[in-house]
Amino acid sequence: MIIDVLTLFPEMFDGILRTSILGRALQAKRLSVRLVNFRDFSTNKHRMVDDYPYGGGTGMVLAPDPIVRAVEDVVAKTPGVRRRVVLLSPQGRRLTQDIVEELAGLDHLVLICGHYEGFDERVRTLVVNDEISLGDYILTGGEIPAMAIIDAVARLLPGVLGNEESARRESFSDGWLEYPQYTRPPVYRGLSVPEVLLSGHHGEIARWRRREAIRRTLLRRPDLVNWSALTQEERKEVEAIAREE
Amino acid sequence: MIIDVLTLFPEMFDGILRTSILGRALQAKRLSVRLVNFRDFSTNKHRMVDDYPYGGGTGMVLAPDPIVRAVEDVVAKTPGVRRRVVLLSPQGRRLTQDIVEELAGLDHLVLICGHYEGFDERVRTLVVNDEISLGDYILTGGEIPAMAIIDAVARLLPGVLGNEESARRESFSDGWLEYPQYTRPPVYRGLSVPEVLLSGHHGEIARWRRREAIRRTLLRRPDLVNWSALTQEERKEVEAIAREE
Repeated sequence: MIIDVLTLFPEMFDGILRTSILGRALQAKRLSVRLVNFRDFSTNKHRMVDDYPYGGGTGMVLAPDPIVRAVEDVVAKTPGVRRRVVLLSPQGRRLTQDIVEELAGLDHLVLICGHYEGFDERVRTLVVNDEISLGDYILTGGEIPAMAIIDAVARLLPGVLGNEESARRESFSDGWLEYPQYTRPPVYRGLSVPEVLLSGHHGEIARWRRREAIRRTLLRRPDLVNWSALTQEERKEVEAIAREE
Repeated sequence: MIIDVLTLFPEMFDGILRTSILGRALQAKRLSVRLVNFRDFSTNKHRMVDDYPYGGGTGMVLAPDPIVRAVEDVVAKTPGVRRRVVLLSPQGRRLTQDIVEELAGLDHLVLICGHYEGFDERVRTLVVNDEISLGDYILTGGEIPAMAIIDAVARLLPGVLGNEESARRESFSDGWLEYPQYTRPPVYRGLSVPEVLLSGHHGEIARWRRREAIRRTLLRRPDLVNWSALTQEERKEVEAIAREE
């Protein structure tokens, strides 16, 4: 997979591309991330990429030409593939794991990062075919959202996560938040590991974990519960927890 | 404001802390970001910070001691202030701009980043008093969420944004997505700037922008609309747009 990031601040990505999963995906050649400073596509003699908004108002607007030409350039270098050109913007659809999975199936992902300013609307009309937001909070630019997308997508590429981590990833997909985890020491600052986890009874451990995962989800994220898809066992646990509380 | 980031990968923050708003906030001494590798608090001779989970299962669990002692250390260095210790985790409450504003009012923010592994539950019990998630997608670790929080919070600190940007920020708070923006050239690849924006009629421009902001919000994010708080003018616009469609 090739990801092109169009940004005025390519140096923001320095730390992240060398580390951890991303570093591993890049080394394994599963992923190639190219940083493209669209200022290089400005034909203005001062290399300006923004200008005053028509109709007045505060702030500057990113001009259409440098971004449109930068997109055309990376597309010309990567012909004939499953591609998506994404604008990172607070107006986009909010990122979810389903969207991450969609993106991970592409060959070429182009991420366009703005900074402070809005984009000239014609960027959307001419080259963008998806618009994504990390969530309902205001960030300085699209760079951190781009990092989140790159990280989330990289983990799904074949061969990037080890088997153990992949297995662990699967454990998210049963739809509950994770149960509480404990490791050594058995008593830390007066707090003990729940006895069942030391018991060696696999069945009881599995039951305890399922109940605690359900309890945590009901408490913290009841909106995640897909009520109509609960197994009979899960339904029983929900009722038992409701009686306890 | 002081932000301590507890992470096993402090180098991930290299790029981001030198750039843009964050660089400006740090230079203006409005913000101090300290990167703390909690591996330095391991008393294990191999500097291990994780261990096998009690009760079995794949993956490793971050042990309580290095993190708890790292938190105690940064707290001891920063006594008597409004403080919050936040765990970045997919189980946390989802970040919103309201939460960002809450955090921006603190003197000391401690952000704990995990990586792959879960945390020993006793970390939560002993030192954590808030748990935040960026959204419902799976990232490799808490580092990118920490960057998002630092960026979002830094922009709200007094003196970090220029006046113009602050004013622009305010424009988000009327509850609608932003209207389409245009800058030069007036015709680009056959696409013209809407005539009203070139008209010089401030009243008409304001009306067009309000209508387009409302239209975009209804189309993309109807969940953001606070129906009971609409002004009479906004209500009229909504009705006009509904008739058009």
